[in-house]
Amino acid sequence: MFDKAYISCCAAVGGALEKRGPLGSLFDITAEDSYFGMDSWEQAESEMSRLSVNMLHKKASLAEKDVDVMLGGDLLNQCTATGFAANSLPVPFLGLYNACATAAEALLLGASLVSGGHAEKAVAAVSSHFCSSERQFRFPLEYGSQRPPYSQNTVTGAGAFLLEQSGAVRVTRALIGKVTEKGITDANNMGAAMAPAAAQTLISFFELTGERPTNYDAVVTGDLGREGSALLAKLLESGGIGVKGALDDCGLIVYGPECRGVNAGGSGCGCSACVLATYFWQKLCKKEIRRMLFVGTGALLSPRTVMQKQVIPCIAHLVELESI
Amino acid sequence: MFDKAYISCCAAVGGALEKRGPLGSLFDITAEDSYFGMDSWEQAESEMSRLSVNMLHKKASLAEKDVDVMLGGDLLNQCTATGFAANSLPVPFLGLYNACATAAEALLLGASLVSGGHAEKAVAAVSSHFCSSERQFRFPLEYGSQRPPYSQNTVTGAGAFLLEQSGAVRVTRALIGKVTEKGITDANNMGAAMAPAAAQTLISFFELTGERPTNYDAVVTGDLGREGSALLAKLLESGGIGVKGALDDCGLIVYGPECRGVNAGGSGCGCSACVLATYFWQKLCKKEIRRMLFVGTGALLSPRTVMQKQVIPCIAHLVELESI
Repeated sequence: MFDKAYISCCAAVGGALEKRGPLGSLFDITAEDSYFGMDSWEQAESEMSRLSVNMLHKKASLAEKDVDVMLGGDLLNQCTATGFAANSLPVPFLGLYNACATAAEALLLGASLVSGGHAEKAVAAVSSHFCSSERQFRFPLEYGSQRPPYSQNTVTGAGAFLLEQSGAVRVTRALIGKVTEKGITDANNMGAAMAPAAAQTLISFFELTGERPTNYDAVVTGDLGREGSALLAKLLESGGIGVKGALDDCGLIVYGPECRGVNAGGSGCGCSACVLATYFWQKLCKKEIRRMLFVGTGALLSPRTVMQKQVIPCIAHLVELESI
Repeated sequence: MFDKAYISCCAAVGGALEKRGPLGSLFDITAEDSYFGMDSWEQAESEMSRLSVNMLHKKASLAEKDVDVMLGGDLLNQCTATGFAANSLPVPFLGLYNACATAAEALLLGASLVSGGHAEKAVAAVSSHFCSSERQFRFPLEYGSQRPPYSQNTVTGAGAFLLEQSGAVRVTRALIGKVTEKGITDANNMGAAMAPAAAQTLISFFELTGERPTNYDAVVTGDLGREGSALLAKLLESGGIGVKGALDDCGLIVYGPECRGVNAGGSGCGCSACVLATYFWQKLCKKEIRRMLFVGTGALLSPRTVMQKQVIPCIAHLVELESI
């Protein structure tokens, strides 16, 4: 429970595919060039992160010195996209890593620092990039590998949020997730791996608070995609929680039929961050959504743990948002 | 500034070289086997992390369900050592990554959650392993590569700390560092890369608070080693801060002459965590040290940023500790 924590502003940067998708016009910045003018995709991701934070500063009329802390991360080894972005932004920096759940993690930790009076203005910033992620987790794109139909497409996008003691959207409560796994070892099937973590966090939250899905205008997971979302609905229903029509997933919202080759939907840190900073932010500000649960979902694997044939431990953090 | 945050207990696990070193007898658990009974060094590191948290629970007579949150990380890709440890410990988990500054980051974020009433009991847990780190950042050990004399030796160790609203050592204040770099691109020279970040954080802290190094019984950096420590003393003196004899470094404390081949000293997340949880914890409890500054130092590079010939951005977080 947070005494006083609000999201007052947000910014989103997207790639070419995201621009062509249904949310394309809602991004603050998009680029046709997947390199964003840089020499490598890793540097491009870092540039996107920097652009999203700079855009946030601009939209909120903030100077860098006004920001007390930036919290965030990304999917690259040693979280270098965000680390290098922070190097170009001289603000105190706390690096986070909970895979695709990092957006929710940054929001809840930022909210706790603001609510506790440790920071007046905190920025939560995360990113992902399709091309750097494929090289990182699967194969370099140059190999032209085919991916199975249940795999997801890492969103090329960066989202940044300003947290302070007033604003349009209140961060009312949050629940930090526990790591769990149900034996999935296929690194292409992230949705199935992450669904049990999302179910566990949602079931705990409803038990602890007495809330029900129907008390919310939206219950949104980060990036379960088509496979994972179907599995989550089943898991919740078998846990006695009726969710008919109540669930949505950022990975299913970010792309439309005009975006070819995305298989089971979007994924990545940037997926949940960008969909929250565009689609849901607009709905919250217009009060089309008054209360929502935002559940970031992350798979804590690495290429090496996959090679060593280990399972995929997953986590899901929940953030409750209210438009005011 | 924290209202009420204390370290009440800590635990440290070390490898064979650390056992032979001057702090050997202060570790809770040490092993001659660098695999810690597991199949790979990555899994060994995760096992060390799990052992350190389990030992902490035992020393503090805690059940897993008593812990409200575990915060931590490590140096491996996607922080899998800690992620997999968290998978075997069913407590809410927040993954962090600020390279070797992660111990200080976990302590300050844990302190803020406890002080703000968001958690009653928070565990901060970090680890590093020489063999998994060499494979990760430099070369597989099997290659038998030689390292230059100014390089440091990643500590095989895991440290865990229990934070709550009472205890033997108070976490009074903290300063979150800003990312900085001074053009160093040699990934073997971490000390030189990180010293400017430590200097920046210490100079900011002394300016903001009016404190001086002589107000403390110890001003301790995480893992600057011989090269970095000498550089930090010079940088502080040129910043007008007299530090004659006031500085110490966990990387210089963890190994003695009996530990061969460690070159310029220890490094890694486990270095600062284990030296704080053993050597300094003992001195704080005996009140041989009443006030100290613990400055975690981290280099935010990855093997890929080194291959892409980028600079090494660094960060240093400061935590002020007081024995009571």
